[in-house]
Amino acid sequence: MTGRIPLLVGGADDVRTQMILVAAHAAEVDVKTEAPKSAAAPELQFSDKKITYTGAILRFFGRFHESSEVYGSSFYESAEVDSWLDWALMELAEPPVRLEQAAQTLEKHLEQRVFLVGQRLTLADIAASLPLQRFQQQGLVQLGRATKRWLGTCLATEAACSVLSSAPPKGKAAAAATAAPSVAPVAAVAGATPMSSTPLLDRYSSCVGGRTEIKRIMLADGDGKSMVGQKVSVCGWVKTAREADKGKIMFVQLNDGSIPLDIQVVIDSGAKGFDSLKGKCSTGASMKCTGEVVASPGGKQAVEILVKDAGSEVVLFGGVDAKEYPLAKKGHSHEYLRSIAHLRPRSNLIGSVARVRAALAQATHEFFRSNNFLYVHTPLITAADCEGAGEMFQVTTMMAEAEKDGKPLPMANGKFDYTKDFFQKPAFLTVSGQLSVENYCCSLSKVYTFGPTFRAENSHTSRHLAEFWMIEPELAFADIVDDMNCAEDYLKYCVRYAMEHNRQDLEFFDDKIEKGLVKRLENLLAEPFARVTYTEAIDILLKESPTAKFQVPVEWGMDLGSEHERHLAEKVFKKPTIVYNYPKDIKAFYMRLNEDNKTVAAMDVLAPAIGEVIGGSQREERLDVLDRRITEMGLEPKDYWWYRDLRRFGSVPHSGFGLGFERLIMLTTGVENIRDVIPYPRYPGHAEF
Amino acid sequence: MTGRIPLLVGGADDVRTQMILVAAHAAEVDVKTEAPKSAAAPELQFSDKKITYTGAILRFFGRFHESSEVYGSSFYESAEVDSWLDWALMELAEPPVRLEQAAQTLEKHLEQRVFLVGQRLTLADIAASLPLQRFQQQGLVQLGRATKRWLGTCLATEAACSVLSSAPPKGKAAAAATAAPSVAPVAAVAGATPMSSTPLLDRYSSCVGGRTEIKRIMLADGDGKSMVGQKVSVCGWVKTAREADKGKIMFVQLNDGSIPLDIQVVIDSGAKGFDSLKGKCSTGASMKCTGEVVASPGGKQAVEILVKDAGSEVVLFGGVDAKEYPLAKKGHSHEYLRSIAHLRPRSNLIGSVARVRAALAQATHEFFRSNNFLYVHTPLITAADCEGAGEMFQVTTMMAEAEKDGKPLPMANGKFDYTKDFFQKPAFLTVSGQLSVENYCCSLSKVYTFGPTFRAENSHTSRHLAEFWMIEPELAFADIVDDMNCAEDYLKYCVRYAMEHNRQDLEFFDDKIEKGLVKRLENLLAEPFARVTYTEAIDILLKESPTAKFQVPVEWGMDLGSEHERHLAEKVFKKPTIVYNYPKDIKAFYMRLNEDNKTVAAMDVLAPAIGEVIGGSQREERLDVLDRRITEMGLEPKDYWWYRDLRRFGSVPHSGFGLGFERLIMLTTGVENIRDVIPYPRYPGHAEF
Repeated sequence: MTGRIPLLVGGADDVRTQMILVAAHAAEVDVKTEAPKSAAAPELQFSDKKITYTGAILRFFGRFHESSEVYGSSFYESAEVDSWLDWALMELAEPPVRLEQAAQTLEKHLEQRVFLVGQRLTLADIAASLPLQRFQQQGLVQLGRATKRWLGTCLATEAACSVLSSAPPKGKAAAAATAAPSVAPVAAVAGATPMSSTPLLDRYSSCVGGRTEIKRIMLADGDGKSMVGQKVSVCGWVKTAREADKGKIMFVQLNDGSIPLDIQVVIDSGAKGFDSLKGKCSTGASMKCTGEVVASPGGKQAVEILVKDAGSEVVLFGGVDAKEYPLAKKGHSHEYLRSIAHLRPRSNLIGSVARVRAALAQATHEFFRSNNFLYVHTPLITAADCEGAGEMFQVTTMMAEAEKDGKPLPMANGKFDYTKDFFQKPAFLTVSGQLSVENYCCSLSKVYTFGPTFRAENSHTSRHLAEFWMIEPELAFADIVDDMNCAEDYLKYCVRYAMEHNRQDLEFFDDKIEKGLVKRLENLLAEPFARVTYTEAIDILLKESPTAKFQVPVEWGMDLGSEHERHLAEKVFKKPTIVYNYPKDIKAFYMRLNEDNKTVAAMDVLAPAIGEVIGGSQREERLDVLDRRITEMGLEPKDYWWYRDLRRFGSVPHSGFGLGFERLIMLTTGVENIRDVIPYPRYPGHAEF
Repeated sequence: MTGRIPLLVGGADDVRTQMILVAAHAAEVDVKTEAPKSAAAPELQFSDKKITYTGAILRFFGRFHESSEVYGSSFYESAEVDSWLDWALMELAEPPVRLEQAAQTLEKHLEQRVFLVGQRLTLADIAASLPLQRFQQQGLVQLGRATKRWLGTCLATEAACSVLSSAPPKGKAAAAATAAPSVAPVAAVAGATPMSSTPLLDRYSSCVGGRTEIKRIMLADGDGKSMVGQKVSVCGWVKTAREADKGKIMFVQLNDGSIPLDIQVVIDSGAKGFDSLKGKCSTGASMKCTGEVVASPGGKQAVEILVKDAGSEVVLFGGVDAKEYPLAKKGHSHEYLRSIAHLRPRSNLIGSVARVRAALAQATHEFFRSNNFLYVHTPLITAADCEGAGEMFQVTTMMAEAEKDGKPLPMANGKFDYTKDFFQKPAFLTVSGQLSVENYCCSLSKVYTFGPTFRAENSHTSRHLAEFWMIEPELAFADIVDDMNCAEDYLKYCVRYAMEHNRQDLEFFDDKIEKGLVKRLENLLAEPFARVTYTEAIDILLKESPTAKFQVPVEWGMDLGSEHERHLAEKVFKKPTIVYNYPKDIKAFYMRLNEDNKTVAAMDVLAPAIGEVIGGSQREERLDVLDRRITEMGLEPKDYWWYRDLRRFGSVPHSGFGLGFERLIMLTTGVENIRDVIPYPRYPGHAEF
């Protein structure tokens, strides 16, 4: 087609370079090679142009000679090659993210085939086999039987041998594709590849001889069926165990926390270790089971593990005396579970809450990072002069000192002598990171804090905790509208994340905790939130008052009660609703005064079934207005000297909001008591464990 | 080629469906369409096979008629089409991650061209234009002039018109590609697309009329040069400002925290808003500058912003009285900066620390999530019976109550009456989340905590804080070797993450704080850590003693001092070193007793220049051994009843470690005083702000 010999610039170690060289050889195209100056992707250079994407280079070779069949031997085969080529370049790229899934896809496809497409080696085989071999060598993946056979075949082709056998060690230039093939390279390759029939192992469980997380089995390709025939080891805790067939078989439901579903293990009395289970293998016992994944004959799940044949085995790590185990029976009340906080994550409810809580924390960090916010750790202990109002916990070393000395704490003029305390003044646990994070916002533009906050409120309700986690973003160059946009985006991001990552947990909640939960969440994502000013909201509520019969009558200037908030979100708008521009007298001093001199740029996000989940505002950036508001509220401007400094030196418009993390979890799971969505709830009289 | 008409199953709203239909039309291939049952990727179905990848389907059409030029009109053009096709399918997929970069790449390429490849519409144009148009309509990207012209051209082709004009509203079935083209669809499309010449705007800065983060300009395509000619608005704080040419020009170095580098803004006296700067635009002032990106004539950076022509403007948000601004001069001491913690993130040092700190927190969450660990929030306040030893802060509401009443706290038998306290017993701030997180580990297998911990230690060193953050992972079915593997992987992941995401910050530290920092970090990543037992380490240190002249003589059984740890890591192994299997008498009761009955399975990771960064152990899972160790240590087994429960009910081998987050930041930045790597350091006498 052309006489020009293209130049391949690519690292000799780079698997993409090797793929390209194998493809060039298979397609009978001459290329020269050259080591790159930096670790860039391989490039195919001509005198006047270049091709950079690996897929494009491979396809270029595939089309080079019309007689070549490396791009498929028919029109339709080419389309199949394209599909597998794209798949391989995506799913087997460095670093691999869904490797065991990819390995399963391959295994399934290759069961009845020699090559990925048609009857000959194609670009698809080349693009898939080379990276897969590397991952296998690195111990990142274990391959099934069909895949191993196919891999051996691909690597034994002349094209592969010619390149791989001559690939020089790290650092040297790539060998030319036209180098003479050497002998028996496949054996060398195979020798470096320890073969085993177990699928991807947990990276840090060498001490039990390797294990596979139950999630990876049961969710493989959706329902786990593609795992049938694999030998696996699983570790976990027994949910239920029962004997059958006069003690010849034991059925165990095993859970390892990776997923809410238990996997059924069927243990034959002939299996190694069976006898050690007698009398010890009840609910709560921990064990390792090694056996074969088989299709489940009518169980709730598609697959189970059969521990029967040679090589199968059970190992009991820790038994349980069923009479003493606090979780031996099913269906404990949430209240009872709270009394055994150290064991309750083994219950279905708290296990699922823990997984969703972790996912929502992850979603929070992902959302803010992807929008270039910096995570700032604001302090927990604070002795700032503007703090110390009611409902704060005091932090001290003085009481312990006094008890050590056996002498009461001296008081003068009704005050303790704090010069002896650790911080030399009264110190407290923070009730909000907002003021601290504002400092960082007014230097670094976009920041957020995510940490514990405290309220020493003597409250015994299902909606308050003494210790809880808050997320507080703060945005420079942003007004109340930007703030509302960010709050809505963030909330939707979190809910969408849980829907995508915790489907089984949400289905559990939908089934056991709140019927229709998933639909409520889908509804939250479906449309823009409603937005009304406080004044509009009051007008609406006044019109609805005759029928709604609110307990507290509606009038402009009041704080909206829970009944009003829920009426707006559930009855009027039937979706999350943002109310903004509240009367200044019911809001904090730092919220920005609007032009009307009556309202401030504050906003609350109200969710159906939950009520307020987010509260935020634009901050007052005008020093004179801020000082006036501080004084109006009966506070001392000098106590806020550093907060005022932000307005004295390079003040900027800025906004932020706060979200109680437990509220978000309640919204996402439907769990109604806040004490059940945090691992160790703190409330009056309760801080044990 | 074939008479079968393939069936396209794809959502009508799905941009991939639309791409495929446009390509089919352009390639003159008939397809039937059908709405999908779920939101899956479009599929092209034949009676006996199907093609699923969008790229493969597009290429299938491209090859359908040999006379078609939609896949390029020459052999080399096809390779170019392939390149751009892969680029578009990757870079413009939902959700877009590097959109402004993609837009810049396109703009540059299209400056001298009508289409992406050759002289006609190809698959590349189709795959790039349709998603780009969507992103533009969603306000996610602003396009340059050349790109807009090209987009208009692509969308005006008959193939595009025929599909886009008849795209039905959400929910209805996709229109067939063969539908008759209607009139003037391009006008409709263009009408929905507000045109502007600014590049990607910050999503939440509408109130200032939009702004672009300085990072996005200065790091565009590496050095920002590709931005030359763009009109941008930037907001930030003035680092330095000076007048030149008798007041006719002002040079401002502006920083917005997105990057350590300042961008230079050159403001002409003729520019709108220039006069408002007089006397107010000194270091610390905040402003918005709208102007054109130009190549910098000899500055340190490649580009700067020129505020001169029509449409250019400066807006001062907040001025500064230079005489009063605490950061007016350069080169303040770290100690002075600590005294203005609310403003110090505006300094280069603390700004870079804040960015690296945020990156390392992000890396932490990414590492553990990608290994399937669950993030668990362990409690801060604890009143567990096993706690309450020295060096803990007490949490109370009693002192404030006493001051309210003006009456001293009553004492009986040298103890206060805690039945009146909030938690009805003495409560403290946690010194470690380990015991709490172990509970979750023994239910959910792999967990970690990342939160604040406290020490009421009266320490004034540069290495201790009263409040700091800890990361504590806990792994079930893992022994001390698994633990070491995890610790090493984690540490390397964090350092690699900072190297990749915070290059400019690390270069700043290398320049100003620790010469050779980047090399030290590269060295940390280059090799496996050294691993020696404590006993081997003692042998080595004994041999080295004559020359090393340790202050504390070396003998088996001693706790290693800082001098010994650093000697091992810096002199002997010259890289991070893990020492494991320590004498049981110098370690905690919960560490697993080894077979030798003398040592426990504990490990410390020691880093050159830093010393200990990680401490961990395998936990004692045998109840009888644990009880013996608790008693040996003079503790009460009953105080650990819940910790013992984990060994009574389904005990498993498990391990974990702890890392002081500030230590990790010091290791990564070279900053030597721990008070400078946390936003608001707490130590004796200091908890203001």
